[in-house]
Amino acid sequence: MAETFPVPTMPVPPVGVVGLGQLGGSLAAALMAAGRQVSGWDVDPAAREAAAARGVTITRELSGVVVLAVPLPAMATALDGLTADPDATVTDLGSVKGPVLQALGPALGTRYVGGHPMCGTERSGHAAVDPALFTGARWAVCVEPDTDLTRWLRVAEVALAAGAEVVPATAAEHDAAVAAISHVPHLLAAALARAAADAGPLALALAAGSFRDGTRVIGSDPAFVTAMVEGNAGPTAEALTRVRAHLDRPWAELVEGGHAVVTRQDGRRTVRVPLERAALLSLGRSGGAVTRRLAAFLECWVPGNG
Amino acid sequence: MAETFPVPTMPVPPVGVVGLGQLGGSLAAALMAAGRQVSGWDVDPAAREAAAARGVTITRELSGVVVLAVPLPAMATALDGLTADPDATVTDLGSVKGPVLQALGPALGTRYVGGHPMCGTERSGHAAVDPALFTGARWAVCVEPDTDLTRWLRVAEVALAAGAEVVPATAAEHDAAVAAISHVPHLLAAALARAAADAGPLALALAAGSFRDGTRVIGSDPAFVTAMVEGNAGPTAEALTRVRAHLDRPWAELVEGGHAVVTRQDGRRTVRVPLERAALLSLGRSGGAVTRRLAAFLECWVPGNG
Repeated sequence: MAETFPVPTMPVPPVGVVGLGQLGGSLAAALMAAGRQVSGWDVDPAAREAAAARGVTITRELSGVVVLAVPLPAMATALDGLTADPDATVTDLGSVKGPVLQALGPALGTRYVGGHPMCGTERSGHAAVDPALFTGARWAVCVEPDTDLTRWLRVAEVALAAGAEVVPATAAEHDAAVAAISHVPHLLAAALARAAADAGPLALALAAGSFRDGTRVIGSDPAFVTAMVEGNAGPTAEALTRVRAHLDRPWAELVEGGHAVVTRQDGRRTVRVPLERAALLSLGRSGGAVTRRLAAFLECWVPGNG
Repeated sequence: MAETFPVPTMPVPPVGVVGLGQLGGSLAAALMAAGRQVSGWDVDPAAREAAAARGVTITRELSGVVVLAVPLPAMATALDGLTADPDATVTDLGSVKGPVLQALGPALGTRYVGGHPMCGTERSGHAAVDPALFTGARWAVCVEPDTDLTRWLRVAEVALAAGAEVVPATAAEHDAAVAAISHVPHLLAAALARAAADAGPLALALAAGSFRDGTRVIGSDPAFVTAMVEGNAGPTAEALTRVRAHLDRPWAELVEGGHAVVTRQDGRRTVRVPLERAALLSLGRSGGAVTRRLAAFLECWVPGNG
């Protein structure tokens, strides 16, 4: 692969975080700990006060990389009433990427680069802020046919500065993947909890580790979960159909196959990837991630041995 | 309820544990810590040596309460080659109760009292022994129409001594309950893992908390899991049908309902229950558990407030 790098140096931009709840507040805290300049805003005065107490500059005027850390239904209007630098790069932390691209793309064009950190807990709000929330997490940063790769790199560097590893993917690839590994699990957890309640108080009294593990995610705010699965309805329905098909298989075969997936130990090898669309998408499709930006390339890992 | 107690005092019997892997070894360790006299046997010399090093008397001659802590397929032959006192009470730790009752009932009659502690992890073997494994866990102890309640109490006292709470239930009630809260979760985890693998390396690379929680149990030994679900095939198939029916509901309703189940906060109130079949089964069906044996009754809790 070519190792010429089209953006050898650029000044580190400030970051403006819109929405200072669990995700946005944690990101602001992680970036400040990494030495980045962070400002932010939240419609909730209590969230603003909590962030200010942690050192975030509270302002309606945002520049550099503007991160929309608001619930999906609020994404389209997140910048209303705020002043964003016309040259600012805008990203978001939303759990579906196609709908946010459709909502923000027409107005922002290539200034918008979608993102999604794969973390967060069933807790929410500014009281759940944790500067280590992103440490070691995968963070999808979207690459579309018209993506401005300089802006993509600015967003990726925010994710790396927060301690995450960056997975390049198109919005459509991302949405199909998270349907299988996040949105369907929420629906299965809900159905499992309901079926256990049908079985009665004895069943709930006997419920132990496998039930608690299998239902934990449905402890999240139901409005948030519903917006997430309904915002990714097509891919989620397709992934659910695949789950149902697996449930039709002989149990011994199903158990063996599932066990093999969760116990597979892939090695990792380090590769260098240039800042090029095809190379980035190839990295993501192979199951790899960017771990560091070096002078002339991105340092990455891909699954594999040797 | 009557508070006369048919078994006011009896000597504390020794405990013999057959199978000294994760469950049996942990039980032996917990009981020794509680001051009980414990002997044991395992077909694996390494497991015997590990247990002996922890103070378990290794012997083929067992008396008092004999606990079969072997995999389900080995249950019917667990006592082969061992000498059990003809008056010993025999219990087991198997994850299904109807099939074990069918296997052991004809030979042992009322000397057999089924049991199932709701704990254990995806680890197994004597290296995974943990004396605190049962602390606070629910432990089903079976009550059938012909159960000898004095023997039932001996088994219940073993569970209480290990730190567990005792849930009385018939084998059939137990098997229906664990189908919903343990066996179906294993199948859902396997199907979820397989569907994620279908979605490709990108999906597995992005997999985070909800996927790991939702698939953790299928990391257990597949032979063990298959024996468990196939040993409880009827109730598991019925519970799986209920899960599928819930998955057909509108997602917003499904999510709301599942969230309500896992976030429900039942209070507890303390009740006194006599050692009587109907009272014990009523306690289990109400979602309650025995926490302590006092002189003239069992101290229990049931869900509820005030």
